[in-house]
Amino acid sequence: MLIPVILAGGSGTRLWPLSRAARPKQLVAVVGDETLLQQTARRLLAAAPASRIVVVGAREHDPEVRRQLRALDPALGSHRLLEPAGRNTAAAIALAALYALDRFGSGSVLLVCPSDHLMTRPERFLAAVVRAGSLAASGDLVTFGITPSRPETGYGYIQSGGARADADGALEVIRFVEKPSLRVAEEMLRAGGHFWNSGIFLFRASRILDELRRHAPEILERVQAAYEARTDEPDGALSVPEERWGAIPAQPIDTAVMERADRLSVVPCDPGWSDLGSWQAIWEHTGQDEAGNASRGDVLLENSAGCLVRAEGGRLVALAGVRDLAVIDTPDALLVAGRGESDGVRTLVAALVAAQRMEAQMGRGEDRPWGRFDVLHEGPGFKVKEIRVDPGGKLSLQSHRHRAEHWVVVSGKARVTVDETVLDLEPDQSVHIPLGARHRMENPFDEPMHLIEVQCGSYLGEDDIVRYEDVYGRT
Amino acid sequence: MLIPVILAGGSGTRLWPLSRAARPKQLVAVVGDETLLQQTARRLLAAAPASRIVVVGAREHDPEVRRQLRALDPALGSHRLLEPAGRNTAAAIALAALYALDRFGSGSVLLVCPSDHLMTRPERFLAAVVRAGSLAASGDLVTFGITPSRPETGYGYIQSGGARADADGALEVIRFVEKPSLRVAEEMLRAGGHFWNSGIFLFRASRILDELRRHAPEILERVQAAYEARTDEPDGALSVPEERWGAIPAQPIDTAVMERADRLSVVPCDPGWSDLGSWQAIWEHTGQDEAGNASRGDVLLENSAGCLVRAEGGRLVALAGVRDLAVIDTPDALLVAGRGESDGVRTLVAALVAAQRMEAQMGRGEDRPWGRFDVLHEGPGFKVKEIRVDPGGKLSLQSHRHRAEHWVVVSGKARVTVDETVLDLEPDQSVHIPLGARHRMENPFDEPMHLIEVQCGSYLGEDDIVRYEDVYGRT
Repeated sequence: MLIPVILAGGSGTRLWPLSRAARPKQLVAVVGDETLLQQTARRLLAAAPASRIVVVGAREHDPEVRRQLRALDPALGSHRLLEPAGRNTAAAIALAALYALDRFGSGSVLLVCPSDHLMTRPERFLAAVVRAGSLAASGDLVTFGITPSRPETGYGYIQSGGARADADGALEVIRFVEKPSLRVAEEMLRAGGHFWNSGIFLFRASRILDELRRHAPEILERVQAAYEARTDEPDGALSVPEERWGAIPAQPIDTAVMERADRLSVVPCDPGWSDLGSWQAIWEHTGQDEAGNASRGDVLLENSAGCLVRAEGGRLVALAGVRDLAVIDTPDALLVAGRGESDGVRTLVAALVAAQRMEAQMGRGEDRPWGRFDVLHEGPGFKVKEIRVDPGGKLSLQSHRHRAEHWVVVSGKARVTVDETVLDLEPDQSVHIPLGARHRMENPFDEPMHLIEVQCGSYLGEDDIVRYEDVYGRT
Repeated sequence: MLIPVILAGGSGTRLWPLSRAARPKQLVAVVGDETLLQQTARRLLAAAPASRIVVVGAREHDPEVRRQLRALDPALGSHRLLEPAGRNTAAAIALAALYALDRFGSGSVLLVCPSDHLMTRPERFLAAVVRAGSLAASGDLVTFGITPSRPETGYGYIQSGGARADADGALEVIRFVEKPSLRVAEEMLRAGGHFWNSGIFLFRASRILDELRRHAPEILERVQAAYEARTDEPDGALSVPEERWGAIPAQPIDTAVMERADRLSVVPCDPGWSDLGSWQAIWEHTGQDEAGNASRGDVLLENSAGCLVRAEGGRLVALAGVRDLAVIDTPDALLVAGRGESDGVRTLVAALVAAQRMEAQMGRGEDRPWGRFDVLHEGPGFKVKEIRVDPGGKLSLQSHRHRAEHWVVVSGKARVTVDETVLDLEPDQSVHIPLGARHRMENPFDEPMHLIEVQCGSYLGEDDIVRYEDVYGRT
């Protein structure tokens, strides 16, 4: 039985400010209208029903992961394995394998896929999965090797050998090659038989656990210990305790297992794959005008060429007389970089992290289990937020020690609790939450609810909150 | 008697989006902390008392002009001549001359200065004015010629001849040269005796009126007709009727008079002058780091050089791996341009104007006679504004046909009228203005008042307003 496993735990910063620690690349519509997670899930829905797709991701991203999956298919996201912290792919795959054996039985064959890559020709990928099926069922660890189109130094490679017996185009794996120098990459391209390592794998759950037991026993034991202490959460989520999970060595499956395992095969495949790991790659995969400008949003271009422009900050972006830039505008941070400049972006983000700048962590808003908030404006003694509560969403019963709040509903309906009073507000109705009052906002109605909050007080940090009751276990 | 006349009616678009039609360059702190208008006024305060400084400017900019002048010196701005529309410098100077004769008498000597230029060594300018004083008093039309530092093709030139008799360094004017080709500019620089035409003049009010009568009689007659129909407004402003003013031919004083007049002289001067007419010029006059980056605001630079960066949009601006760019960020529009690219910016702005984009006209906020508002956010059926009302400011008594409003005071105190009710609100107090209610906001207190307005309604344009009473005559 084929069990697609989406690894959604990545947290790269190469696409800052489009992606942030709190909203990594896979949760962003980097290319196209759907997020990369959604595109990945959509591809896999062609291989297995929604009810069999497993997602492993960070606990903190789960509300957004769940929302994105549900938006694609209401039956998606019913197997969400929440990691309290990222422990790299060996641990994530081990957890998924244990879960699949329990849940789907010993015949489970895992199709492990990163969640943040692009495929422009997914039908070719599906065909490769079909070709690899019997090999994996019979015990091979199958990797998918992407036909290289250039001597890329940013990817690992797989060197293939002869054809696997009985296999439909699959080749033996001679070795895995780490990110090469340009010279080595050029040689591999010339020699042929080398493929990019896509990080996509197909294997029996029991086989990968066997290999983990042999080559990375500490990882497997600790993942098992964490899995044994699991909690089934409402709504298809499974979580493992932080102290056990945090103790697992963080190692990629490639070094933990693949480079050392037997019965490895590679299925070559050319599905228009990209890891979208740089602005350059995103520019290549975004529709361009005749001057080679790829723009999105409210963009005006004059005498400019070869630019990637993302106007996502709610403002007009105008370019004049520039070449080969990436201009990435968001509500709280703007990046202007050379289109091919990835080291500089990494250095910038490192500087932001070192300076503990919020812009490295999150944008002006934040996804929450109940919906989302965005800070519209801050000034001395006040803060203005836009708050959206999903149908069924319910904020905690809470109070603040340093601020009062005004809520003005602008669409949908809100149920509001202020101390002993409960009232329902419609658009253009408002309520005042005095300093210290126990209060709660919820949306037990069918439509999304949307309000403007004006906070007044001497201290307006998110940490000024006392939670008395919370349906999401945050008290 | 020396009467400084500041021409504040300019409306260039070369510095978009820092300057807009509604807030032109002279009202912006382009270089330094003071606006160019304020810097101009400050220079002139060394030559004459505040009570003798005349400002000619657009009616629509007057609230901001007045505010900026008062902020510099409470006695400034008591002679503000408001133009209903820009009719170029000949008309503005004629108006100032008529006003000065009436107000300060026949001995008035006008020192006419553009309001949007920079002088880094104003003391040299003052010395030149002193040297020019007796020539102007005796009837010369004195221009100030800037010692050229490069073969600039963007300025007009003045070719000088021999020394004026009895004059302290002043030279005769042979001719005015329009913006030259590079070849011609280089020749003039080589030949010497050529100066940039700064647009600064010193002459008796009666003399310039005589010359206007001789060389541009239609302009003078129509300005006189407009002046005769003037209205003295409260608070030092004088306005002329739109229909009369609009009928005046728009012509610069240079072509209307200077190029044809007798008794012209030029006083050479090197006051570190710039017209700040391009991002290149602003970059040159802004403090730079060792890589030649001139930045202002929340800016992070990585491997970048020669850039002018203005982070004025309330967000972080990060650059990586770029050279010689102008990155101008504002709340509603961002420009990324080659630092030396001025044609492209002009073309962009022309495109915005043609598309009737608001961004060409104004930023996200607007100055009003009573203070200012800024739009924080708009969504379907709602809009959020930040409103600031100056002490003494009073909005019109008004109503709206399509929207209700919520006001939450966040600092200062507000007096609010809603139909028959008048109440005073303190920070963290709010009021609801129902659809159709006659209402008014005012600040009769000593501190600035600051509130957040949430509008709810089907139509939220600024033109949904019925004014019943207005202290600024806008009913």
